[in-house]
Amino acid sequence: MDEVRTEAWWGRRAWALLSAVRARTPLVQCITNLVSMDIVANAMLAAGASPAMIHCLREVPDFSPRCDAVYINVGTLSEDWLPSMRAAASSGRPWVFDPVAVAASGFRMEACLSLLALRPAVVRGNASEILALASRSDDSFKGVDSSHDSSDALQAAKALAQSSGAVVAVSGAVDFITDGMQVVSASNGVPMMQKITATGCAVTALIAAFVGADPSDALVAAACALAIFGLAGEIGMESARGPASLRMHLIDALYGLDEQTVTSGVKISLLP
Amino acid sequence: MDEVRTEAWWGRRAWALLSAVRARTPLVQCITNLVSMDIVANAMLAAGASPAMIHCLREVPDFSPRCDAVYINVGTLSEDWLPSMRAAASSGRPWVFDPVAVAASGFRMEACLSLLALRPAVVRGNASEILALASRSDDSFKGVDSSHDSSDALQAAKALAQSSGAVVAVSGAVDFITDGMQVVSASNGVPMMQKITATGCAVTALIAAFVGADPSDALVAAACALAIFGLAGEIGMESARGPASLRMHLIDALYGLDEQTVTSGVKISLLP
Amino acid sequence: MDEVRTEAWWGRRAWALLSAVRARTPLVQCITNLVSMDIVANAMLAAGASPAMIHCLREVPDFSPRCDAVYINVGTLSEDWLPSMRAAASSGRPWVFDPVAVAASGFRMEACLSLLALRPAVVRGNASEILALASRSDDSFKGVDSSHDSSDALQAAKALAQSSGAVVAVSGAVDFITDGMQVVSASNGVPMMQKITATGCAVTALIAAFVGADPSDALVAAACALAIFGLAGEIGMESARGPASLRMHLIDALYGLDEQTVTSGVKISLLP
Repeated sequence: MDEVRTEAWWGRRAWALLSAVRARTPLVQCITNLVSMDIVANAMLAAGASPAMIHCLREVPDFSPRCDAVYINVGTLSEDWLPSMRAAASSGRPWVFDPVAVAASGFRMEACLSLLALRPAVVRGNASEILALASRSDDSFKGVDSSHDSSDALQAAKALAQSSGAVVAVSGAVDFITDGMQVVSASNGVPMMQKITATGCAVTALIAAFVGADPSDALVAAACALAIFGLAGEIGMESARGPASLRMHLIDALYGLDEQTVTSGVKISLLP
Repeated sequence: MDEVRTEAWWGRRAWALLSAVRARTPLVQCITNLVSMDIVANAMLAAGASPAMIHCLREVPDFSPRCDAVYINVGTLSEDWLPSMRAAASSGRPWVFDPVAVAASGFRMEACLSLLALRPAVVRGNASEILALASRSDDSFKGVDSSHDSSDALQAAKALAQSSGAVVAVSGAVDFITDGMQVVSASNGVPMMQKITATGCAVTALIAAFVGADPSDALVAAACALAIFGLAGEIGMESARGPASLRMHLIDALYGLDEQTVTSGVKISLLP
Repeated sequence: MDEVRTEAWWGRRAWALLSAVRARTPLVQCITNLVSMDIVANAMLAAGASPAMIHCLREVPDFSPRCDAVYINVGTLSEDWLPSMRAAASSGRPWVFDPVAVAASGFRMEACLSLLALRPAVVRGNASEILALASRSDDSFKGVDSSHDSSDALQAAKALAQSSGAVVAVSGAVDFITDGMQVVSASNGVPMMQKITATGCAVTALIAAFVGADPSDALVAAACALAIFGLAGEIGMESARGPASLRMHLIDALYGLDEQTVTSGVKISLLP
């Protein structure tokens, strides 16, 4: 593309994608962890998408092909859900991968590597998760929350994008999104969002909704979804008195976002 | 019955049933989908019922007979939960059925038809679900949210009630409840409730609580539960700034409903 | 210990333990029921802990030994999760047990007795649960909510503590915590907390976080966690308009607790 990707360009793209989600109501199959179900579904509905938490292997052949996108999250991985994850990821629909706590066990690392081989459109993780996945090592596990800054994982993200063919997003105080060549940063959000469980899951599901509404450019979709979710967090923070009220105000804000707020509020830029 | 079912009569019945739930604290076994667990449990507690999410097949023989009612919801159906659903539905207690996304797959349609044969007291779905269940066809699937108006499904609901022996409720902007002969409409609620995940599950669980508190008339119980939940949504909407705050205010309102509010607020009528 | 355990002493201990949780961010594996996942994770994050809901048996050998504590809750018990519970309880980490609705079935009673034999650091239940567990009988089951006052279960709690080697906490309007010899009471909290699903699960998880941050005295950790959670409920109640807003304000309050509020607010005393 020859167009110059200014901050204003990103603002227009973010609004166009959110509008596409609202207009097309993409149906997104979510095979996600048990902790995240409520916030994932509510965030997607607030954004205008249609989430469907369906994880039964026998339903995948009928159901997954009808979806606009698939979201897979291994937070509460189990042996009986893994075949459904693999089948849904293989259904031919664009899919987005959240390798939660990938280094928690050897079993989880293997499961994530096997899913990664099924060519997700986007992988989104925190810095510790992306570092572990890129190195294929669970040596550094410290818990489900990241013990690294997102910038620590930038080279790992680029390498992972190149080896997997996926867009890789590392979330943190600044989010980095890369296809292995270009790197985009998204700087919306507030620190207290990390005190709400499954906000990472919710934003990754939102990436799936954006990809489902417009699969033409997964890098742009991922950056815009991350920025918009963070922007909703910033607006929510104005009314919040703690993490539980932030959660409520964030989802309300996501629902109420208008063109002016989005185009002027998202902070995305292409790194040189 | 010879009494005339005026709007005032319905108001008094709705209040009497809510009061019965609060006084008797019906124990309701809920085998419900993973997304809905939190809002189902909290809505039932706010209404005065005692929910118990117990889905293990080995517990059904001891536990289900102790319950006042059973609620079964297939939203996140799996092969290992289906036998528990069947066993609980066969326990001799009145039970209420929520055939979420019945047309999502052939497996789900078959599972729902097998449950329907176990004679639920009430089936509650959106128009798309009732149409699919009545026609035994999954051709029209568009997602878990309805792509039809409730009035589109009225004839299907009557036919389904006649063939199944259940009261059938179709929820939408106006809810219709029928035993195959009479049709009652309930018109409470606000559109934004559809932007909160699992409100349909929560109101169906509330129907189970009402049936558990007074099993004498499932048609009346279903209509009153739908109207009361919708009324709580209307009250919640007065303070809401989006779907997440609506969810909170709805449950607070359900907890705080008083006689004057219920008797004057429910909008139920018998269709001619 | 020779120090006199005045109310002021308890206030200082409670603050010291909450500060330890915030400083050390204990990683707590939670194998908990499906209803409670959201509130358990959010309450733990608000308190400063790092929850990880991981229940897959194949992950236990790698993951459980890395945790500071384990929390096990049988609310939605199933045959396939029980081996994971047993394995995590046997991993050598201190663990806290929530025998939700232990008397709901013979299967559940047996499962709880088998877990109890694996020497939890703390068992926390309502009066009905502790009475049933101590008597090994499911005759009295009335539902997941308690049908007894906590004081009814005090002798049962002492006997259970002596036979199991665990600290036993009975929660209610007044919580009692005993190691079989000493009995401590904690009197924080508000009645409406019982109208929020899984508050009992959340406070038991918080006990696990406190034990994880400082395993030196499980009796003190349990009493302080119960009092602090109740204190957050009292503060939340000042802004609540019903159970759903109480839930939000409680978690916000838990996040915001400061030294003055904790030291002057917890109501713990050693019974003579």
